[in-house]
Amino acid sequence: MTTQGYNVAVVGATGAVGEKMLETLEKKNFPINELHLLSSKRSAGKEITFKGTAYTVKEATPESFENIQIALFSAGGSVSKALAHEAVKRGAVVVDNTSAFRMDPEVPLVVPEVNEEDIAKHNGIIANPNCSTIQMVAALKPIQEQFGLSRVIVSTYQAVSGAGTKAVNELQEQSKAFLDGEELEPEILPVSGEKKHYPIAFNALPQIDVFQENGYTFEEMKMINETKKIMHDSSIKVAATCVRLPFFTSHAESVYVEVNNDNVTVEQIQEAIKNAAGVVLEDDTENQVYPTPLSAAGKPDVFVGRVRKDLDNSKGFHLWVVSDNLLKGAAWNSVQIAESLIKNNWLQK
Amino acid sequence: MTTQGYNVAVVGATGAVGEKMLETLEKKNFPINELHLLSSKRSAGKEITFKGTAYTVKEATPESFENIQIALFSAGGSVSKALAHEAVKRGAVVVDNTSAFRMDPEVPLVVPEVNEEDIAKHNGIIANPNCSTIQMVAALKPIQEQFGLSRVIVSTYQAVSGAGTKAVNELQEQSKAFLDGEELEPEILPVSGEKKHYPIAFNALPQIDVFQENGYTFEEMKMINETKKIMHDSSIKVAATCVRLPFFTSHAESVYVEVNNDNVTVEQIQEAIKNAAGVVLEDDTENQVYPTPLSAAGKPDVFVGRVRKDLDNSKGFHLWVVSDNLLKGAAWNSVQIAESLIKNNWLQK
Repeated sequence: MTTQGYNVAVVGATGAVGEKMLETLEKKNFPINELHLLSSKRSAGKEITFKGTAYTVKEATPESFENIQIALFSAGGSVSKALAHEAVKRGAVVVDNTSAFRMDPEVPLVVPEVNEEDIAKHNGIIANPNCSTIQMVAALKPIQEQFGLSRVIVSTYQAVSGAGTKAVNELQEQSKAFLDGEELEPEILPVSGEKKHYPIAFNALPQIDVFQENGYTFEEMKMINETKKIMHDSSIKVAATCVRLPFFTSHAESVYVEVNNDNVTVEQIQEAIKNAAGVVLEDDTENQVYPTPLSAAGKPDVFVGRVRKDLDNSKGFHLWVVSDNLLKGAAWNSVQIAESLIKNNWLQK
Repeated sequence: MTTQGYNVAVVGATGAVGEKMLETLEKKNFPINELHLLSSKRSAGKEITFKGTAYTVKEATPESFENIQIALFSAGGSVSKALAHEAVKRGAVVVDNTSAFRMDPEVPLVVPEVNEEDIAKHNGIIANPNCSTIQMVAALKPIQEQFGLSRVIVSTYQAVSGAGTKAVNELQEQSKAFLDGEELEPEILPVSGEKKHYPIAFNALPQIDVFQENGYTFEEMKMINETKKIMHDSSIKVAATCVRLPFFTSHAESVYVEVNNDNVTVEQIQEAIKNAAGVVLEDDTENQVYPTPLSAAGKPDVFVGRVRKDLDNSKGFHLWVVSDNLLKGAAWNSVQIAESLIKNNWLQK
């Protein structure tokens, strides 16, 4: 470690999240000594400019991590499974933005505004939660802290960029064709690699990731299990329905919560959210103020609006939570974890 | 009443729902003697072809309803308030597809598969429920009947056609502009006539209809109040979050329900839905089978998929409900009510 900064590797540098990782490192002026851009063999050789300097992307191998202190992984679960431990073996601390290690009891799963202290317990790997989980728990944390939290029922409205660059292109091309009165055979969504594909343009697909035996999708199970782990409370009842929609950026969520106290007011919930780190209250129905996917795109915060009390359950509240899925939902949160490792001296174990 | 059929007036014949009313009357071969197409002054004079005959649309006035037996209203609440009683005074029975009379205790609010018998109690006016309510109660009815129903929490995914022809055009033009890298000033959505407008293309707007003092939108309150009235149970706890999305046709709904019995299985819920009138089960996650807005468009049924048990509450289930908002959500349901009036001899009081 030099005073100039750290040797940082970005694995999956050519992907949608990788691109945002580099933007975030630049924006936050992250202390970098050497930057190594890594990818699959297929994408190796591409050139990427960072702070005015051109870098050639190299194929990620175990040896790529020699002399790396911080490795930001975002190249899919199989790459993380193959290489994260190799990186740790060589002295790097890995911040992994895939589902590979999220539910591993040895691996902290962290949203810094919610459970930053868990980073200290790492054994070389810290997992970045699923995008739709991150923004929800960031909004729920101040509620849990001040009023208790016993129940969450969420229905999501998720952007195609969460399914990668090919899905973004599919929405774009399909939409153009549809508006020209033509039809394009769907090939990517809902899940690249699945047997069936459905049109996403001017449609809604109630499937994100593959189905589990219990009838839930893997995305829904991620939201359920990760929320309990991050919030340190396996007794919170969580249910999720995840839906892919025809927009490019930001996930939105209709969230129902039950607190532990009968006498909480909407104003108290709004105040708690307003004062929470990383969360912005945009809630003024009289003036039609609420967040939307387009208004949140490109911003690092989690936006909350439409806070209202359930009409039947005095402990129930409804919220509308929106955030850029590639920033707070992925790259921004990963870099925040890396910053916390440095700031708190948690890099060395 | 002649054996050839009935004198029928369609009020709002030039609108999005009016068009579907005529399509439905034709498709169902509704017994029509004289057909009168009525509209606001602005749209009067237009020509519309029905079963090969051209009709000139006339301005709706009190006198338009002389000698009419069945009047299908779908020209906005103010037109219904001004003219429905005039039609009744002249001997017509009104099926009203606006919110003008829905919560009037003297006016039955009817989805034929749910509460057809209420039609008999009419005093000249029968109200057609809100589109998003109709498809939900059609799906919930078999569950209520067989297992009891105590709680409903719904998040909607609603098509722009529910906001009228101008909203449809706005989505189309805005989407084209967006894909061409241009920007079009929003003018219609979320609510025509409101102060602020937001882009709908590649976005999601958590506002349908105007906000009430309690923080809910009028659309959300419609779903809450109408459900209790149609299902004849004001003790059912209902919560709704209504969201406008960038697709043209069909509303989708993520619905959480609680039944009154601990031992109900997913298979029993699926079986109940499968056997219900007007409802089609499309639920086979192993083969990625579930309804979508595009797959339901143009069909008169309500489609249900993604049936699964809540993981924490043994009385809780999650469903995904999709239907064409202009057909079962509006025109189809209205014409079903008119058919029931005839079939059951409920036209005369």
